[in-house]
Amino acid sequence: MKTRLTEALGITCPVIQAPMAFAAGGALASAVSNAGGLGMIGGAYGDAGWIDQQFGIAGGARVGCGLITWKLAEQPQLLDQVLERSPAALFLSFGNPAPFAPAIRDAGVPLICQVQTLRDAQQALDCGADIIVAQGADAGGHGESRGTFALVPEVADEIARQNSEALLCAAGGITDGRGLAAALMLGADGAVIGTRFWASREALVHPRILDRALSATGDSTVRTRVVDVVRGFDWPGRYNGRVLRNPFIQKWHGSEDTLKLEAGAEAARWAAAQEAGDPDVATVFVGEGIGLISSAPPAGSILENLTAVAQRCLTRAASITVC
Amino acid sequence: MKTRLTEALGITCPVIQAPMAFAAGGALASAVSNAGGLGMIGGAYGDAGWIDQQFGIAGGARVGCGLITWKLAEQPQLLDQVLERSPAALFLSFGNPAPFAPAIRDAGVPLICQVQTLRDAQQALDCGADIIVAQGADAGGHGESRGTFALVPEVADEIARQNSEALLCAAGGITDGRGLAAALMLGADGAVIGTRFWASREALVHPRILDRALSATGDSTVRTRVVDVVRGFDWPGRYNGRVLRNPFIQKWHGSEDTLKLEAGAEAARWAAAQEAGDPDVATVFVGEGIGLISSAPPAGSILENLTAVAQRCLTRAASITVC
Repeated sequence: MKTRLTEALGITCPVIQAPMAFAAGGALASAVSNAGGLGMIGGAYGDAGWIDQQFGIAGGARVGCGLITWKLAEQPQLLDQVLERSPAALFLSFGNPAPFAPAIRDAGVPLICQVQTLRDAQQALDCGADIIVAQGADAGGHGESRGTFALVPEVADEIARQNSEALLCAAGGITDGRGLAAALMLGADGAVIGTRFWASREALVHPRILDRALSATGDSTVRTRVVDVVRGFDWPGRYNGRVLRNPFIQKWHGSEDTLKLEAGAEAARWAAAQEAGDPDVATVFVGEGIGLISSAPPAGSILENLTAVAQRCLTRAASITVC
Repeated sequence: MKTRLTEALGITCPVIQAPMAFAAGGALASAVSNAGGLGMIGGAYGDAGWIDQQFGIAGGARVGCGLITWKLAEQPQLLDQVLERSPAALFLSFGNPAPFAPAIRDAGVPLICQVQTLRDAQQALDCGADIIVAQGADAGGHGESRGTFALVPEVADEIARQNSEALLCAAGGITDGRGLAAALMLGADGAVIGTRFWASREALVHPRILDRALSATGDSTVRTRVVDVVRGFDWPGRYNGRVLRNPFIQKWHGSEDTLKLEAGAEAARWAAAQEAGDPDVATVFVGEGIGLISSAPPAGSILENLTAVAQRCLTRAASITVC
């Protein structure tokens, strides 16, 4: 497939794998890149040792790295360490990218900014982002409330007004070839895909957690702050995270203030469940697209299938029009 | 344009205008139908006199009618009154359609069921709906939390499993030709479009309310229960409504329990503002697509433009694939 994104990044399928915290290591990132997309190491909260290790596992494959912007601001020296690994792109999410943009640009590394609102997109364009990722609430993991469907074309129009050189990816709910084709129709140059790669052979996901997710429908997820409260992560108030509902989430969602008071015991219980892969208590970060997923094949075959379906959808599209 | 929906309904553009309460009268419905889509009278809470009047205004144009299902259940005799007007379709939303499906089928009227979850879709298929509308949270007015992007293909797959004769429309955030093209890629046979027609010359919207909406971005809306609390509408707890944020919503969103206590005075203030079209207090029911809308032309020209853009997107789609 050929879009402005494939041409800019030198890839053959307009798909960037989301840099999912903890789940997206070097094995997943390299598998996606080797199959024609752009793989991303989920640098997330900025554990420099882990990031180094994952670049090592990627074994020289051309992969990028994602970082959580508000967390990077607490340890800005991490940026140079990551840039030294010559990532194929740097992917910043959740916070103001402006302080970091100049160093990324100077290193000649493409800057990808993930945004959740039109206002964020304007800020990212102002600081010279090469690629804007318009992420809708449909996504798994952290995000905000705007839906993918109307956010993407609105950001596309803003890009056209402000800097038509910038590229656009859609994110949130894009799980198969139909979703990729739809994202392109909405005005995106490609898609960022998380949940579909989270459920792959290479992702770093506990098998019991994975099994629970594979049997879920898209009705089973919820956006909540419970997870960040129990693990004591100091996320800015505007963000929450989409997870699978389970007894732990059911117990605490809507009662986060009480959870704070009981955080000690509950945190220990949660951490043990996380370690053991107990899906009734541990967190299952997936998007609404989980309802379209029932197996966890290798990432390369996921991308191959997704591309084939997208091509079929796009090829048939013209037959819908009657001139 | 030609899809299974256009063939089933005898229309030339695969667009159904959402039966928006209070805003969608006979003038809007007939304008949409006369331009090649399917127009709908927003029968909503079931004011039989108003519905009759709007069918009169539609002047014999082939239009359908929408009703709120849980409200219809309180006055089931309304169904026969509406069926006597030989609507082009009956559009049920928010509640269990099963008790009403047999009479609609017996009348030979196509049954459209709007759903917000996969589970709702299964229920609608079980009762023999001809058209399922998968409505995402991106929509204006009442709805639920699932996003349009992943809900539509998941419902498409369920239809394929359960009754492949049933048709599927996407709803929520679809505002222009890009959105219609994307909906078709996701597996829908057409789209239900609200907000774009709400902002049309024929919609029954106060000009001051309309002006406020036309200057808003998609970042400016929120899903809330404030409106139903202040007007004392007894909506089932799973639903809320997307509206434009204004000082009244800012004041009460998240404090609905307090609002209930003060409902008398606030209800009077809200009702007066509604009458006067005061956009700081009155309710502006719009979806996230409002950010793509900056004028209110005649509905016929909206549909014409939307179709032209969708055709352009779909025609170009094949060029993205590289065989």
